[in-house]
Amino acid sequence: MKAYHIGAQAGISSLTAVEVPEPKVTPGNVIVRVKMVCLNHRDVRIICGEYGPKRPADRIPNSEGVGCVEEVGSDVTGFVKGDRVIAPHFVSWSRGPFFQAVFARDVGVTEDGWLAEFVSIPASALVKVPDSLSDQQVVPLSAAGLTAWNALVEIGKIKAGDKVVTLGTGGVSIAAMQIAKMHGAKVCVTSSSDEKLDAAKRLGADVTVNYRETPEWGAAVFDALNGGADIVVDTAGQATLAQSINAAAPLGRIAIIGALAGAATTGLANYGSIIGKNLGLYGVAAGSREMLCALVNAAAENQIEPVIDRVFPFEQTPEAYSYLEAGGHMGKVLVEL
Amino acid sequence: MKAYHIGAQAGISSLTAVEVPEPKVTPGNVIVRVKMVCLNHRDVRIICGEYGPKRPADRIPNSEGVGCVEEVGSDVTGFVKGDRVIAPHFVSWSRGPFFQAVFARDVGVTEDGWLAEFVSIPASALVKVPDSLSDQQVVPLSAAGLTAWNALVEIGKIKAGDKVVTLGTGGVSIAAMQIAKMHGAKVCVTSSSDEKLDAAKRLGADVTVNYRETPEWGAAVFDALNGGADIVVDTAGQATLAQSINAAAPLGRIAIIGALAGAATTGLANYGSIIGKNLGLYGVAAGSREMLCALVNAAAENQIEPVIDRVFPFEQTPEAYSYLEAGGHMGKVLVEL
Amino acid sequence: MKAYHIGAQAGISSLTAVEVPEPKVTPGNVIVRVKMVCLNHRDVRIICGEYGPKRPADRIPNSEGVGCVEEVGSDVTGFVKGDRVIAPHFVSWSRGPFFQAVFARDVGVTEDGWLAEFVSIPASALVKVPDSLSDQQVVPLSAAGLTAWNALVEIGKIKAGDKVVTLGTGGVSIAAMQIAKMHGAKVCVTSSSDEKLDAAKRLGADVTVNYRETPEWGAAVFDALNGGADIVVDTAGQATLAQSINAAAPLGRIAIIGALAGAATTGLANYGSIIGKNLGLYGVAAGSREMLCALVNAAAENQIEPVIDRVFPFEQTPEAYSYLEAGGHMGKVLVEL
Amino acid sequence: MKAYHIGAQAGISSLTAVEVPEPKVTPGNVIVRVKMVCLNHRDVRIICGEYGPKRPADRIPNSEGVGCVEEVGSDVTGFVKGDRVIAPHFVSWSRGPFFQAVFARDVGVTEDGWLAEFVSIPASALVKVPDSLSDQQVVPLSAAGLTAWNALVEIGKIKAGDKVVTLGTGGVSIAAMQIAKMHGAKVCVTSSSDEKLDAAKRLGADVTVNYRETPEWGAAVFDALNGGADIVVDTAGQATLAQSINAAAPLGRIAIIGALAGAATTGLANYGSIIGKNLGLYGVAAGSREMLCALVNAAAENQIEPVIDRVFPFEQTPEAYSYLEAGGHMGKVLVEL
Ligand SMILES: [Zn+2]
Ligand SMILES: [Zn+2]
Ligand SMILES: [Zn+2]
Ligand SMILES: [Zn+2]
Repeated sequence: MKAYHIGAQAGISSLTAVEVPEPKVTPGNVIVRVKMVCLNHRDVRIICGEYGPKRPADRIPNSEGVGCVEEVGSDVTGFVKGDRVIAPHFVSWSRGPFFQAVFARDVGVTEDGWLAEFVSIPASALVKVPDSLSDQQVVPLSAAGLTAWNALVEIGKIKAGDKVVTLGTGGVSIAAMQIAKMHGAKVCVTSSSDEKLDAAKRLGADVTVNYRETPEWGAAVFDALNGGADIVVDTAGQATLAQSINAAAPLGRIAIIGALAGAATTGLANYGSIIGKNLGLYGVAAGSREMLCALVNAAAENQIEPVIDRVFPFEQTPEAYSYLEAGGHMGKVLVEL
Repeated sequence: MKAYHIGAQAGISSLTAVEVPEPKVTPGNVIVRVKMVCLNHRDVRIICGEYGPKRPADRIPNSEGVGCVEEVGSDVTGFVKGDRVIAPHFVSWSRGPFFQAVFARDVGVTEDGWLAEFVSIPASALVKVPDSLSDQQVVPLSAAGLTAWNALVEIGKIKAGDKVVTLGTGGVSIAAMQIAKMHGAKVCVTSSSDEKLDAAKRLGADVTVNYRETPEWGAAVFDALNGGADIVVDTAGQATLAQSINAAAPLGRIAIIGALAGAATTGLANYGSIIGKNLGLYGVAAGSREMLCALVNAAAENQIEPVIDRVFPFEQTPEAYSYLEAGGHMGKVLVEL
Repeated sequence: MKAYHIGAQAGISSLTAVEVPEPKVTPGNVIVRVKMVCLNHRDVRIICGEYGPKRPADRIPNSEGVGCVEEVGSDVTGFVKGDRVIAPHFVSWSRGPFFQAVFARDVGVTEDGWLAEFVSIPASALVKVPDSLSDQQVVPLSAAGLTAWNALVEIGKIKAGDKVVTLGTGGVSIAAMQIAKMHGAKVCVTSSSDEKLDAAKRLGADVTVNYRETPEWGAAVFDALNGGADIVVDTAGQATLAQSINAAAPLGRIAIIGALAGAATTGLANYGSIIGKNLGLYGVAAGSREMLCALVNAAAENQIEPVIDRVFPFEQTPEAYSYLEAGGHMGKVLVEL
Repeated sequence: MKAYHIGAQAGISSLTAVEVPEPKVTPGNVIVRVKMVCLNHRDVRIICGEYGPKRPADRIPNSEGVGCVEEVGSDVTGFVKGDRVIAPHFVSWSRGPFFQAVFARDVGVTEDGWLAEFVSIPASALVKVPDSLSDQQVVPLSAAGLTAWNALVEIGKIKAGDKVVTLGTGGVSIAAMQIAKMHGAKVCVTSSSDEKLDAAKRLGADVTVNYRETPEWGAAVFDALNGGADIVVDTAGQATLAQSINAAAPLGRIAIIGALAGAATTGLANYGSIIGKNLGLYGVAAGSREMLCALVNAAAENQIEPVIDRVFPFEQTPEAYSYLEAGGHMGKVLVEL
């Protein structure tokens, strides 16, 4: 089959088109014929060797995709050829709260991912998707969408009328905006680009703040939301935490999702505000299959809008990676097989 | 001022139009000039002497209304003349979980209510309402809406994609339908009237079941919701509980709100299903001021649709009561001053 | 190997001693050499044909036991020969909240149980027990103890100073008393026998009520606990629910565990108290492997006292069953291999 | 009456013994005759001018005390002369979750405190204490104890078998150790003094770590607790947060209580562990009256051990402050009237 390997992990140019044997079906697993793959910044970091230890050069990357069941393992029940499916990338996290060992089985990282004609996934991780959701609607749900769902619903306990701020307009942030609107919340989106903020408004954002123009954007968000955010979706990292604390309402919950923005070089000047506002800060790492089921259900019930920036053919996957890395996109960058 | 007294509490004819002195402002309290009053079935039961012990004949009834601040007590801060306000009827329940003593101060029951030109309410119970909500949008929030909010949000932990069933189309049920839709849930409404079910569909109900045509409506709801309701809003009482249990999904939450449908004469044949499905059954009695603030906030953010059946002038309040008791209405019955 | 079959399920005399081949190890499973078996009333009901549909006559009963790993399946990691282990009887319930399908794999009911020299259990269900806990301490944890833990900790959110009442002195009730005391709670135990109540006091019960002498024991418990029970462990059934409601404090949680006391022939006269006290009633069915891990951990940390009434040799298992059914015991009835 | 004023807030020497008129009883308030006062480090910081803005020089300090009702306001019910009482220092926080305005009424900070013969407290904040608890048992509950209860019970959801670490042996830490033991948890105490660690062991600590001898004490605690702490009580501040993160188990909760250890000069090298372990970090500021009621209840039920280092007469209060500031104490420093 056609596939890509991550190669030397020295940058996007390491991505190598290969022709390899199809994965063989084994007990408990399902072979999925891939239809569409979603690129995430995590994938770029892996291919750049910046995401944990180096992986074998023949690893097939990508954690998020949609496809159809091609073949089921001898002891698998509940799936038949043709079922359209997605899966969380932590394939051993079926249900219940997070546990440390989820990192041991991470599709696209510790085992082969979706960037190929076929991928083998444990049946216990697969989620069937309803016909009412298109491939483009459903493909961003299993990684970016799932993380946003975990942050807002499981951890944030979002309810109608709550106020939410998302940092930037990346995949998790857009998903968070959509999930928040689905729950009747008010959403503020931040970005360094007025074009992206305009696009966010068209997608449902209630208020926006340009963090380049307003370096003290925490206070600006606090005011724009008329008393601060009940939930802050911090997809950046330690360098933005101080502003996230400023943006939060009393009893606010800050979902700590990313570490992209670089380490902070100084402590938090507003550390005392964590106490003064009784904030909760929560580390979030993707989510369980059960959460993904709930999200798919909610997405179908509310006909989530796909926010797609551009779709590349499989042969142009390296260009798709470069396009994502350049950062000019607003919405998902997809690869179609 | 003009007002009504509950009189002998022998039926709606006991309601007596009177001319009485205006309430005097006292420390901690606010005099509110009443604009609009909402009638609830609880009010009918009080006037019929069916709601706890008899009350003094000169009690002014009604628990739900909207008005404008007329005068504030000497030590009251945060309110000025003209502020438009509502209040939960358990006026001592400011925040936090239910406590037994909330019943001791019940506006329209243990102390004078809204059916008058002026009413005295503790400042600590008042909620200011934003200009973006009309009187008709806001007046049903403080009793029926608040109970529905407590049932769905506080107790039910509703989230997008959840499935909800409401029993009947009374005030709490319609509010529950609207609050559920606000949260991206799927809603089934039951009624004995196809006209009311049609109206419910126009208001957003996803599926409907006529419980007169389908006595085993629990199973019908279970199927219509494709696996049962995550939240059952049981506004009826013990006689409907068995069907509510049948309607519930595993881990479903049944909000026990009403006792109108009469006592059950037999035990539950499906008592074991409470264990078999791990159900939770919860008694719900209105809600706190803090919950009402959250509801007003959510109603404003999502521009809740007022569902008004008919508005009567103050002089025709007895007719309004009779109209409500007749049961043909679909939506709120209001009295305007 | 030596084992018992449930036979015709027409009563304890159906229990049949047999000599059958040892179970063969299969992928994902572990063969456990049984050391000790705990008898529960559920086992009696199964053998009497009163617990769901009839099962195959060659089913080996009993849901609760302790043993040592004898042989592990080809793909099993984490267990070696000699490890001392227990398991919840719903072997597919690893973690997270209850789900309906747990009933499909119920050790001692839908598949062979512990009343044999060897039993095959899925590795994913096994819990290793620390040396600091004896067989007698640990054997009652996996069914009776687990149910009590689920009721008090997961559902009841027990904390120090809470007030708990247990109905009767059966296995779940005694476990509940011990788990409640472990959490610094105050416990009331009820029984029809003053001897058992005395024994309960020696085991840590703070107050006791004889429900035969005091038919309105709900009110008596309410008073004895100085304002009612925060958690009621109702191991009986619908016939006791009215008294359980009376015993509960406002916001009290009633764990509905058993259906032994027979169906109620009338509705609840105090149904309105569910609303008046804002009670929560919760169906409870055993618990997950993860809860069992937490319980074993707590039992070891607090050196839970084994409450053993009598230990029978394997050959006298029918006598042990009869002894249990007679109801005179106070504490666990065990069978030793 | 005799009292102390905080004076110029330039250090302990600012504390000034004065003779002032007794507070007059006003509606809603109760005059309490003070029996015993507890000194906390917060009190030292106030008197040193290090706790927010300067306060009026005639402010009477101290947030924690016990006394007897002397006189009740005209409209106060539920209290009579002689009732022994305590109160949380955020006197407007009756119940429910934290809200920002609690800081506006802070006894000993924004209004006169306990360091006098009489203090006026709102009746709505008072908690009656049972005879079974002595003054010495009860006096440390309302500030240090309440904070520890909030951290462990409300936020930490502590249960038997959980593992807890407390930073240091200050008042909150000792209370946390006792409350954790009350709930059947396992406790690790850290200190820079082996003598204090020995004392902690005598008081119930299961394991101890000397953080002076072991600068990487986070890892040491993680190992000593065999997989990390479920709850970290971080009474220090930003400078200790990195070690607290290392000490935490996956899904661990870190209660951020203090800011005494000084600001961090660098960011967190282990920031990613917040995500990797899915930690929750929570700012905690004292607690509500309702939490204090629960704590008093738990303390009485479990006969909490008073941990008193030294009791000073009222006249030697400055010496008591100096003794506390010197830091050699292990347990509470009290002033008796
Ligand atoms: Zn992006
Ligand atoms: Zn109606
Ligand atoms: Zn028994
Ligand atoms: Zn100290």
